[in-house]
Amino acid sequence: MRERGVLFHTDAVQAVGHIPVNVTDLQVDFLTASAHKFSGAKGTGFVYIKSDLALPNMIYGGKQEHDKRAGTENIAGIVALGAALEESVAIMTDEGKKKNALVGTTMAELQIGIPGIMFNGETAERLPGILSVTFPDASGEAMMHLLDLKGICVSTGSACYSGKDEPSHVLLSLGLTEQQAKSSIRISYGRYNTKEDVIKIVSVICEAYGKIVATKLAGRNL
Amino acid sequence: MRERGVLFHTDAVQAVGHIPVNVTDLQVDFLTASAHKFSGAKGTGFVYIKSDLALPNMIYGGKQEHDKRAGTENIAGIVALGAALEESVAIMTDEGKKKNALVGTTMAELQIGIPGIMFNGETAERLPGILSVTFPDASGEAMMHLLDLKGICVSTGSACYSGKDEPSHVLLSLGLTEQQAKSSIRISYGRYNTKEDVIKIVSVICEAYGKIVATKLAGRNL
Repeated sequence: MRERGVLFHTDAVQAVGHIPVNVTDLQVDFLTASAHKFSGAKGTGFVYIKSDLALPNMIYGGKQEHDKRAGTENIAGIVALGAALEESVAIMTDEGKKKNALVGTTMAELQIGIPGIMFNGETAERLPGILSVTFPDASGEAMMHLLDLKGICVSTGSACYSGKDEPSHVLLSLGLTEQQAKSSIRISYGRYNTKEDVIKIVSVICEAYGKIVATKLAGRNL
Repeated sequence: MRERGVLFHTDAVQAVGHIPVNVTDLQVDFLTASAHKFSGAKGTGFVYIKSDLALPNMIYGGKQEHDKRAGTENIAGIVALGAALEESVAIMTDEGKKKNALVGTTMAELQIGIPGIMFNGETAERLPGILSVTFPDASGEAMMHLLDLKGICVSTGSACYSGKDEPSHVLLSLGLTEQQAKSSIRISYGRYNTKEDVIKIVSVICEAYGKIVATKLAGRNL
């Protein structure tokens, strides 16, 4: 691809601040990330552009951001992004271990509570703290709403697609059936989550699962 | 224009939060404003779009901002914008009077200190707190830098054009010569400015003016 002049962009929004990211090693031409994924403020992010590449301007009118995106900058957010990234990178190895321990406990407990539960990409290289699970026979959408009522936020697909009713294309690519993809949720632990959170989450999930299955048995759709 | 289907957009960035703005009275189709002009956070703003008008999306990829501009929103900034605007509108009449008094004092004092100084748009309807002055014979750019050294920020043109060396097209449209436009600065008072600030600003301007003129007489360019 590269020999033919094809440029490569990677959306590293989940990786930056959590695992080592080196644009030279990755051989990418562009890389984007968002601050709120590493404890910065929502609404800020950055793009890496290889120095010898020229991109057309996105918004015209002023000289801000090297002419690329005119308009008064979110200064406080930009400064916070830098500080948050510096801190996240400094602690990411320890945080990764901590979050993986939380994921391990979650998997062990869920396996006991919900026989037949599936953990997606279990043997693959995964980001610390993120766990995708597929329930034997329960809608991920219904599960998400029941957890929401208990103050727990999980996702059924990728963030940008939340709100759409389609199964995650990522899960389909992993080989899941449409039915399985629709029976999945993604749990993400951050640096402020504790073992107590895991216990609460698992117990809420198990209770919700029971409710969904019981409702189904009663012949009603939740 | 309207009969021929021409749409009207107004950049109300200086007006919103400072004088009454009513999109129905103004008969505009679009209106834009920025939060940092009414004590909100930099990097946030809003656009008014008449309800029966459809605009093409600006950034694709997610359902944020009615599909118009995909991407995680700056939630804290958006909430702050709302709060700042509410407060600004509530106090704008009183604030306007206060700021106009500051402008009046500035004009009276500058006229004494710098004979021949000109106030642009003096007889026109002006926003409270904003004053454009033209010096008889002194570069606005040099004045701006000397004031900056004393911790006073003024502008020579409109914000987006700062950094460019061209005379303000607004001042040229008001009938100033290119030389006059280049000898101008814009002073803007905000709600946190006091009479003490005015006294300091006027004295610093007068001193800087003396310095610029003296340097010129000595045959050097500042």
